[in-house]
Amino acid sequence: MQRIGRYTIKLSGMTGIIGSAGVGSKTEGEGPLGKDFDFLYPDDGIGQSTWEKAESELHKKAVTLATENAGKTPADIDVIFAGDLLNQCTGSTFGIREMDIPFAGMYGACSTMILSLATASVFVDSGAANTAIASTSSHFCSAEKQFRFPLEYGGQRTPTSQRTATAAGAAVVEYGQQNGIIIDKVMIGKIQDLGITDANNMGAAMAPAAARTIKDFLTDTNTTPDDYDLILTGDLGHVGSQLLIELLRTRENIDISKVHNDCGMMIFDREKQDVHAGGSGCGCCASVLCSHIFKRMKRRELKKILVVATGALLSPVSSLQNESIPGIAHAVEIIFR
Amino acid sequence: MQRIGRYTIKLSGMTGIIGSAGVGSKTEGEGPLGKDFDFLYPDDGIGQSTWEKAESELHKKAVTLATENAGKTPADIDVIFAGDLLNQCTGSTFGIREMDIPFAGMYGACSTMILSLATASVFVDSGAANTAIASTSSHFCSAEKQFRFPLEYGGQRTPTSQRTATAAGAAVVEYGQQNGIIIDKVMIGKIQDLGITDANNMGAAMAPAAARTIKDFLTDTNTTPDDYDLILTGDLGHVGSQLLIELLRTRENIDISKVHNDCGMMIFDREKQDVHAGGSGCGCCASVLCSHIFKRMKRRELKKILVVATGALLSPVSSLQNESIPGIAHAVEIIFR
Repeated sequence: MQRIGRYTIKLSGMTGIIGSAGVGSKTEGEGPLGKDFDFLYPDDGIGQSTWEKAESELHKKAVTLATENAGKTPADIDVIFAGDLLNQCTGSTFGIREMDIPFAGMYGACSTMILSLATASVFVDSGAANTAIASTSSHFCSAEKQFRFPLEYGGQRTPTSQRTATAAGAAVVEYGQQNGIIIDKVMIGKIQDLGITDANNMGAAMAPAAARTIKDFLTDTNTTPDDYDLILTGDLGHVGSQLLIELLRTRENIDISKVHNDCGMMIFDREKQDVHAGGSGCGCCASVLCSHIFKRMKRRELKKILVVATGALLSPVSSLQNESIPGIAHAVEIIFR
Repeated sequence: MQRIGRYTIKLSGMTGIIGSAGVGSKTEGEGPLGKDFDFLYPDDGIGQSTWEKAESELHKKAVTLATENAGKTPADIDVIFAGDLLNQCTGSTFGIREMDIPFAGMYGACSTMILSLATASVFVDSGAANTAIASTSSHFCSAEKQFRFPLEYGGQRTPTSQRTATAAGAAVVEYGQQNGIIIDKVMIGKIQDLGITDANNMGAAMAPAAARTIKDFLTDTNTTPDDYDLILTGDLGHVGSQLLIELLRTRENIDISKVHNDCGMMIFDREKQDVHAGGSGCGCCASVLCSHIFKRMKRRELKKILVVATGALLSPVSSLQNESIPGIAHAVEIIFR
């Protein structure tokens, strides 16, 4: 492992993903990526008595399926890095509490999957762990209840708002991989806050962080957007993605428009589904990456991608106290060979 | 770096703490460790308009002082691992958002300082970072408001309840240390849940996790309590500490009573201060470790210690939904040479 440039961590090239799973619910299954999910629940209840328990069950399912997909059992896993949007990260905690796996809780709002995957990769690449899992979850109903209004209230959502995906994703990382999906580089992002205060426009709050991370990564690695088959942002949605492209073009003279896509734009069909500016939530990027994207990599449709997950580090209390919304974006470069 | 036993990570012996700071407020200053704090605020307001902003200011102060103490500037820091008890970890986020340091949010409730320190140490020891910070904070008033009742309500606290410390701690970790405070081994803990549901008895909820971590660590390293000058738990307080000693003695035949102490018992004087079962909160272990303990190590009073911070991974919602309280405990072995 070595540092390149100011912020980027280059791994050995032997740390790879040996198993993964993305799970979703009804709305995710009806979206354009529905067929790629590893498991779909028929509704957001997930067979549980509360939205929070539903999210934990979803999280557990993703971890269980990813572990099986890797040909492992929970006893083979040295550490799991996991987090979610719920207060005190209980979506993760209660989801995996019975698995007896060393547990490191992480919080990066919707960027948590890449934060967890980056940290898990460093642990595995350094020998601190032989096998690690990165996982995250989110749930439309638990997120609405916590961050905005209970669904029963019937609040109207603004055109810039995004729909939290009821979804979870998990990836099993292990050292010693000659071929397959390899985590080549990782970067921990820096908080960016341009003063956005509209909690219904997360895309705008997070776009500057994505721009900063992409710019720093390209600078550190001396690459251009053309060097990647895909630059995939976490969940900026339609509003934030447009802002990101504009920010990079006008301020940094970087044009990512030809290779950019966004998990929040991909997971739902904006024309057919009532999702406003697209998908969001920890589980959006996690499930799209761990199901659709990794499947495409295995089909050799994508050989080198940069995944940049973004998070809005607000809380309901910070918004009520008129604070602006700090954004963050973490990155991993993933190659297939 | 290498794994020893089932769960323990042995570092190179060259990763050390080159600077640290513990800050507190009035009640902490009046406690037995008051003179060792690096900075004390005259009251819990910390000069801010809300309890949440007060906690962020406290966090920022600890990080700033630790950075100065290490002879560094924020531009020298490659990554900061930080977290706190507030919803969406805003105590940390808003505290350090202007520092432009790569930020990895962590959540382990009151165990967060050791989770962050362990992760920062792995990053530094592996070369993923040259210099890293681990930091956490807590605030009595923001924690009471969030987890129990607003102070204005005047709720009565039970004898088993603990007082959240208004405190923060930060440690700067760097590779290449021949002498001084060295992080020798780290262990990420496993969730333990024996079914405790009383949110006013965190000590009981966390003691089984501390017992499991201590047992696993002693087994992995083939050591006994006599090999340590101090086994320091995070903040079990008086109730949880007694339970820990009993659990280890009766179930594992391990007697830690001669070398055990607990940050929650040390930070306040139970006889003179109205703190019930002792101190708690992320900032309790962080500030005691980063001020009092490291100062004692530098005076060569402690040469080999095992620090086991404990966390109760509940949320107010999980308690209302009749969930039990999962506990966790992470460990670092610190030596002075």
